[in-house]
Amino acid sequence: MSAPVTLVVTPLTRDAFAPFGDVIEAAGAATAYAINAGTTTRFHDLATIDAARDGGRPVVSIFRAQPRELPLHVRMLERHPLGSQAFVPLGPQPYLIVVAEDPSLPPRAFLARDGQGINYRAGTWHHPLLALHAVSDFLVIDRAGPGNNCDEVELDTDYLVTL
Amino acid sequence: MSAPVTLVVTPLTRDAFAPFGDVIEAAGAATAYAINAGTTTRFHDLATIDAARDGGRPVVSIFRAQPRELPLHVRMLERHPLGSQAFVPLGPQPYLIVVAEDPSLPPRAFLARDGQGINYRAGTWHHPLLALHAVSDFLVIDRAGPGNNCDEVELDTDYLVTL
Repeated sequence: MSAPVTLVVTPLTRDAFAPFGDVIEAAGAATAYAINAGTTTRFHDLATIDAARDGGRPVVSIFRAQPRELPLHVRMLERHPLGSQAFVPLGPQPYLIVVAEDPSLPPRAFLARDGQGINYRAGTWHHPLLALHAVSDFLVIDRAGPGNNCDEVELDTDYLVTL
Repeated sequence: MSAPVTLVVTPLTRDAFAPFGDVIEAAGAATAYAINAGTTTRFHDLATIDAARDGGRPVVSIFRAQPRELPLHVRMLERHPLGSQAFVPLGPQPYLIVVAEDPSLPPRAFLARDGQGINYRAGTWHHPLLALHAVSDFLVIDRAGPGNNCDEVELDTDYLVTL
């Protein structure tokens, strides 16, 4: 394996993340309206949940992630071919996202801030959860059901992520 | 309408909330295991998402709720007959939950703390979202689809909730 290649970390935005899935945040939501006699605003339908194919069902879990040390080496990616997977932080800590359209090409690295959540489209190559700074809880919505729903790949290049 | 009847507010626990749905929290989860090479704990399958009946699909939204003033009058309840509805707070603020097995009987009032979320089973009578202390965001997982999925009822009694 050759010398590490440093990935540029960019802010998470809906446009930049569109090839990989959804950004779950109120800001910039396409549909928002008042409910409950005006006491609440509903930012509606922020992620495409794809969990029912091949006998699957949507499952709600909490992931409690240890913070990673930076710089971080990215040497593998995984994907869930049968369903989407959403992560919404339950606290204020930022976290890192590393995704690739194809594992033979350099990944993209994003910094999620201010409570931004994400939803990986089924089959999106991504690094497992990368919490920063503190133990961080995330609400996760993914698929349970029959069949193999996790592929892993070792990368040919050693990528390095720092802030 | 006669004089207000004060509801006793009790702490939210899985056991107490069982007639109405699920409590979404890591503490006390029935199934928890290490993933991602031991960097993350998965507290698995914390809520029964029921959103697919009658052509429905699960929808992820953010509700931004104005805080309520206490004491609070509870004079109506609603229910979603076609699907479950989950609320997970995205910040540290506590909030109130008012539910009833039957709207002709006195409701139960619970205080959710420390990030506790809930999932109303389809058809559970409940008061609309009751944030406290500050504008509060909640991740909501409910059903979109055809059919009437919201019933409202006016209560015969004026209930009062305070802390």
